[in-house]
Amino acid sequence: MVEFKVLEQNHPRVDGLDKVTGRATYAADVYLPGMAWCKLATSTRSHARIVSIDTTRARDLPGVYAVLSGSDFPDIHFGSGGLKDRYVMARDEVYYVGEPVAAVAAVDEMTAQEAVDLIEVQYEDLPVVVDVLDALREGSSAVHPDLPDFEGFGFALGGENVCTLLDADRGDVDAAFQQADLVIEDTFRSQGINQGFLEPMACVASVEANGRLTVWASTQGPYQVRAQLASVLDMALSNIRVIPMELGGGFGAKLRLAFEAFPALLSMKTGRPVKLVNTREEVFTLNGPRLPVANYIRSGVMNDGTIIAREAFSVFDVGAYLGAGPNSGVGHGLGAYNVPNFRLRSYGVYTNKVYVGSYRASGVADMTFAVESHTDNIAHKLGMDPVEFRRINCLREGDTAVNGSAMPRNGLQECLDALKDRLDLPKKLGQRRGVGVALCEWRSGSGPSTASISVNEDGTVSLLTGSVDISGSDTSLAAIAAETLGLPMERVIVAKRDTDLAPFTGPSGGSRIVYSQGTAVQRAAEDTRDKLLAIAADRFGVPADALSCEDGAVFVQDNPPQKLTISQLASMSLSSRGGPIIGTASLSTMPFTPVYSAHGAEVLVDEDTGQVRVTRYVQAQDVGTAINPMAVEGQLDGGAVQGIGRALTEDMLFDSETGAVRNPSFATYLMPLAVDLPDIENVLVRVPAEDGPFGARAVAEPPGFGAPAAIANAVYDAVGVRINEMPLSAERVLAALQGQPAPEIPMDVNALKEAEGLTA
Amino acid sequence: MVEFKVLEQNHPRVDGLDKVTGRATYAADVYLPGMAWCKLATSTRSHARIVSIDTTRARDLPGVYAVLSGSDFPDIHFGSGGLKDRYVMARDEVYYVGEPVAAVAAVDEMTAQEAVDLIEVQYEDLPVVVDVLDALREGSSAVHPDLPDFEGFGFALGGENVCTLLDADRGDVDAAFQQADLVIEDTFRSQGINQGFLEPMACVASVEANGRLTVWASTQGPYQVRAQLASVLDMALSNIRVIPMELGGGFGAKLRLAFEAFPALLSMKTGRPVKLVNTREEVFTLNGPRLPVANYIRSGVMNDGTIIAREAFSVFDVGAYLGAGPNSGVGHGLGAYNVPNFRLRSYGVYTNKVYVGSYRASGVADMTFAVESHTDNIAHKLGMDPVEFRRINCLREGDTAVNGSAMPRNGLQECLDALKDRLDLPKKLGQRRGVGVALCEWRSGSGPSTASISVNEDGTVSLLTGSVDISGSDTSLAAIAAETLGLPMERVIVAKRDTDLAPFTGPSGGSRIVYSQGTAVQRAAEDTRDKLLAIAADRFGVPADALSCEDGAVFVQDNPPQKLTISQLASMSLSSRGGPIIGTASLSTMPFTPVYSAHGAEVLVDEDTGQVRVTRYVQAQDVGTAINPMAVEGQLDGGAVQGIGRALTEDMLFDSETGAVRNPSFATYLMPLAVDLPDIENVLVRVPAEDGPFGARAVAEPPGFGAPAAIANAVYDAVGVRINEMPLSAERVLAALQGQPAPEIPMDVNALKEAEGLTA
Repeated sequence: MVEFKVLEQNHPRVDGLDKVTGRATYAADVYLPGMAWCKLATSTRSHARIVSIDTTRARDLPGVYAVLSGSDFPDIHFGSGGLKDRYVMARDEVYYVGEPVAAVAAVDEMTAQEAVDLIEVQYEDLPVVVDVLDALREGSSAVHPDLPDFEGFGFALGGENVCTLLDADRGDVDAAFQQADLVIEDTFRSQGINQGFLEPMACVASVEANGRLTVWASTQGPYQVRAQLASVLDMALSNIRVIPMELGGGFGAKLRLAFEAFPALLSMKTGRPVKLVNTREEVFTLNGPRLPVANYIRSGVMNDGTIIAREAFSVFDVGAYLGAGPNSGVGHGLGAYNVPNFRLRSYGVYTNKVYVGSYRASGVADMTFAVESHTDNIAHKLGMDPVEFRRINCLREGDTAVNGSAMPRNGLQECLDALKDRLDLPKKLGQRRGVGVALCEWRSGSGPSTASISVNEDGTVSLLTGSVDISGSDTSLAAIAAETLGLPMERVIVAKRDTDLAPFTGPSGGSRIVYSQGTAVQRAAEDTRDKLLAIAADRFGVPADALSCEDGAVFVQDNPPQKLTISQLASMSLSSRGGPIIGTASLSTMPFTPVYSAHGAEVLVDEDTGQVRVTRYVQAQDVGTAINPMAVEGQLDGGAVQGIGRALTEDMLFDSETGAVRNPSFATYLMPLAVDLPDIENVLVRVPAEDGPFGARAVAEPPGFGAPAAIANAVYDAVGVRINEMPLSAERVLAALQGQPAPEIPMDVNALKEAEGLTA
Repeated sequence: MVEFKVLEQNHPRVDGLDKVTGRATYAADVYLPGMAWCKLATSTRSHARIVSIDTTRARDLPGVYAVLSGSDFPDIHFGSGGLKDRYVMARDEVYYVGEPVAAVAAVDEMTAQEAVDLIEVQYEDLPVVVDVLDALREGSSAVHPDLPDFEGFGFALGGENVCTLLDADRGDVDAAFQQADLVIEDTFRSQGINQGFLEPMACVASVEANGRLTVWASTQGPYQVRAQLASVLDMALSNIRVIPMELGGGFGAKLRLAFEAFPALLSMKTGRPVKLVNTREEVFTLNGPRLPVANYIRSGVMNDGTIIAREAFSVFDVGAYLGAGPNSGVGHGLGAYNVPNFRLRSYGVYTNKVYVGSYRASGVADMTFAVESHTDNIAHKLGMDPVEFRRINCLREGDTAVNGSAMPRNGLQECLDALKDRLDLPKKLGQRRGVGVALCEWRSGSGPSTASISVNEDGTVSLLTGSVDISGSDTSLAAIAAETLGLPMERVIVAKRDTDLAPFTGPSGGSRIVYSQGTAVQRAAEDTRDKLLAIAADRFGVPADALSCEDGAVFVQDNPPQKLTISQLASMSLSSRGGPIIGTASLSTMPFTPVYSAHGAEVLVDEDTGQVRVTRYVQAQDVGTAINPMAVEGQLDGGAVQGIGRALTEDMLFDSETGAVRNPSFATYLMPLAVDLPDIENVLVRVPAEDGPFGARAVAEPPGFGAPAAIANAVYDAVGVRINEMPLSAERVLAALQGQPAPEIPMDVNALKEAEGLTA
């Protein structure tokens, strides 16, 4: 193994002290002179035409500076995934309960709220559809009857509410199913999930005299917010500056424009800075959560355990607007397995609910629950050990991945081995105890990444990136720069950023920061190092490749005492021909580098109540190289906890008549507490990536995928019942234990196939 | 002349609207939660030992958070010009009236002031010297008896108070004087000058939980403040972040550390942000003004008008600490002339007055007054026209400049011609009216300069530099970037900066921004353009040099319709191999590029009162290329106004016993008002520089140099009296008109020569 000086060692977060002492500045901490507060009036109807909005009384309330409604915004549609299906604020119709219809700016928060309560909206109700499988059905009422006219709408399959379809096909699927010794099909359903970040979204917008807009935002994607704001406000991109503040959790929920346009337009109308901070209720009802998903999976298997065919039809509820949509869902219908013939479909379907957002690899946790529960079902049908069945079908180096790439070297088998070792599998626990496993797969995230490093005159360096810190990513980037430059961590300053200052960078999400942004940092540090070496080479009269850069100094390899410290070189640079040193790097895409992990859960099922308790949780993940092991383990712990919450208790409840969120608070939306959780045991597997910085792979997403299936498989192992619907609540498990049939998941796959002209 | 698209056209300042509408944020506008106010206790003695400082009553005052005095700071000397002659706060002794001895942080400004008034300091008086020529004399009391022990003290010539000596010699001066047909000597004296910036210095310092210090400062040199703060607080450079706020005038006064260390240490002691804003009185007594200068000049001249020898001995009062010292003074003893033999000396001499600071090329205005008054005296003695006498002796291309460089092509003669034309010289006005001229010389400022340009996805660009905007320099830098990239001005965003974000850059001063920093911006823009061209070349399948970049697009030279807009290329870059585009450039020094101007004043002298009225003022300056003519003229106007103030009314009065400033307010320190001034007529001469961006030369300093001599020469022309001492106040002119002898300037040049072992 390579000898690292900085990497593979634990470093506290560079922003840690500030955060634990409450000194870090979040968007809600921004106070500007003359600042107004914004509050939102929201729809009380699920689907309705807006007959009128009377803001007279609100405007007349003393202390109110301005009131705006949808028609105050430019008549511009926007949307995600290329489909422009929404206005930034409801204009003629509302499509879900909680949709913003008006915004107030007032002298303080209470006055703003009082004004909101004085706004009178007249609605004319329209047909409502809440359940995604209802909405998929032919003849369902259409959420957006004008869908075919939306810019970016690109196909005409399925029912009135299907707004997007992702597909992937390979081989002759129907023939393979004919050939299979055994065909197994399952249908699964997973629930709506709130991302549960600690910091409600917040934003302050302030317009300058010259019309330029500054937005202090709680966002993972400042450049994305800038671009979308420019679009919906019909402004030049260069007239908007987004300053991303400290992020109190995002998990994908803060990747896109949320409500920043409301305070922005209010600031333009009033000439004042305007602040908007979500209540926790708004976090649940305004900012796209994940919505229910239905998954049909069918596999054709040979008696030797080889999977030869796979069909997966996934129906993603996207709520009122496409939002984050199925996103990365379709390819994951194969899981971590090498399947030669497949037909994969992911449908995005409108309903009258809050629009869907992103959450730690949108959709993949739902797919993993389905695929890995199904995988256990096949193993059991074949009478094979679930771990050995997985091993047989695992993707191996050189196999063709679902995206068509050749599989590079990876640590999937090593993860499976590590999990098996740690849990001492196979084993039978008995006494209502069981063990279950699940494999998780993701790819190291890519996308535009830039970094710039400047050398201060004392030999410390300032690192400027456009990426927002997420889960300690700044610390990891600092470690990569420090390792490359042969400097200790404390000599790397990670600068706070804003869109005016840092070059365009993709958002902090999708496990792209360390792998892709980290590569940009490594290359910028190499560029910086080359410039330091050039000064030393000039001074020593030797070629640059005769020099090494280590331990804060550059020295002649053949004569190490001949050296200059980086401080000396930095100071020399100020009067050198090349001037003060800046190193930069920029890239757009990185090679396909998969990430695998194996999760294992042990559970104890209370047969009287149905309550499932996770007594042990192990995950082995191939991280390539652990840039900062402490941060890697933090990601693994956090993901497992989120997965356990998703498996057992978290459940957004939607009113079946109105689609309104029925439990928009942490008192009723049950995230796991420390007392509900086992210690999370992490095993870091290290099969270096060919392309990541120092061999590092992405880490962040997979830890959240495995728990639902691992726990469901463990429950089956413990008490012999198969739960196909998340969460595995006590009620649901108890009903199954009592022999009650599980509620039907009315997904008509044949209708979907027929619409596509496939053999039913 | 080159066809420019952006340059040579008038552009309003990019920060203009914000400034005129009061939206721009200055350091005094920074308010942070929990912020404390700082006030300073200052010395009432001119030179004394501090026996004791009793802060008990101040500390006990409710609302007071902390009180500190000199011994609370690390025992570290610092200073400018390499001489470490001072503590950041008086420790054992005070050296001038007004020197800070203690600082208070309290809940509000009034409480802080009340606490300051409760601090009791016991002093033991020590000998005082106020006048710089007294201080120079052998046997004078020493301001700093321990001067020889100061780090950086490098010579032993002259009296006890001489702390620095600059010299320049060429040829055999004594022999040349022997050979001369005529030898003329003069002695001049100029007064103390306050820079008169509108915005009093201000600063907020805030320490983070991890000990890192952020300083919002009113400064021209954020990196210089960072380095000096790190030094006096004994902190790592990387633990300090300086955010330079909008600058309400600096003129050199804000180049260095002022009092930022006081709120910084108070913030560390209290854990609160701490703000300090100078009163106008403190602006006069705490922040180094320019102090009196005495100049002896002697020239040896041939009957044909050629100057063959020059001696210039300049004595600069530096007050209690070297501060900015004589700075750029010594070489300017030659003026704009080619003199083959010279001996130039500049002495920096301590007195018990506020330490000296910088002001629009420290010392050069004083030298120009002396040299250009003396030049007229010689012309008159030779019976030659002053303009023609100047023309004979002007430095020409290929001559050796005082610094030993060969003179590059320049517009000195062109300036003289332009002035002569505009004023229709020679002419005799009569009736107590006169005309006078003066030549000014400076060099385009150099020093470490860096720039970074990132291309946004819509084709606008963000320009990041470490230089603070001064007099519209941001607008000029934006224009250089726009011209290079073929973009309109409004597509260039000039980012606000701080030391964490931008690479090390020299301070905004000494006429270095457009010439040197502008070159870095031009090169960074070229780097950016090359990367845009590379994407287009790749797309079109042609070599990059077959492309041109103009009017927001890149096109094939042989087939202009084949083009891609910069917006399209920017958007393509996000998925290009090279990723998002960043262009950078860095340099340390720029070639020697002189700047010349010719000033002419017409005056009317009131023989009854002695009052001098400037009735016309013309300056012709070689600007090379006018990046933004509106800004260039602004610089020329402003400089001329400052020069006229210096010539006629501005005069810092120091108590002759204590050295205390006697007129520390704008009511008593008389800066010229609009009603006192003529229109300033500017002629822009354009002899492109070989190395500046698009041929531009520096502009800023020379406009301030010419007025005193031009006006003194005009007064001589009008009424036949030669005033050797600034300002040319009504009292002084009237006394001369009444035949009273001018007060002696008791400068003993022989003693200075003897000390150096030169022939007396």
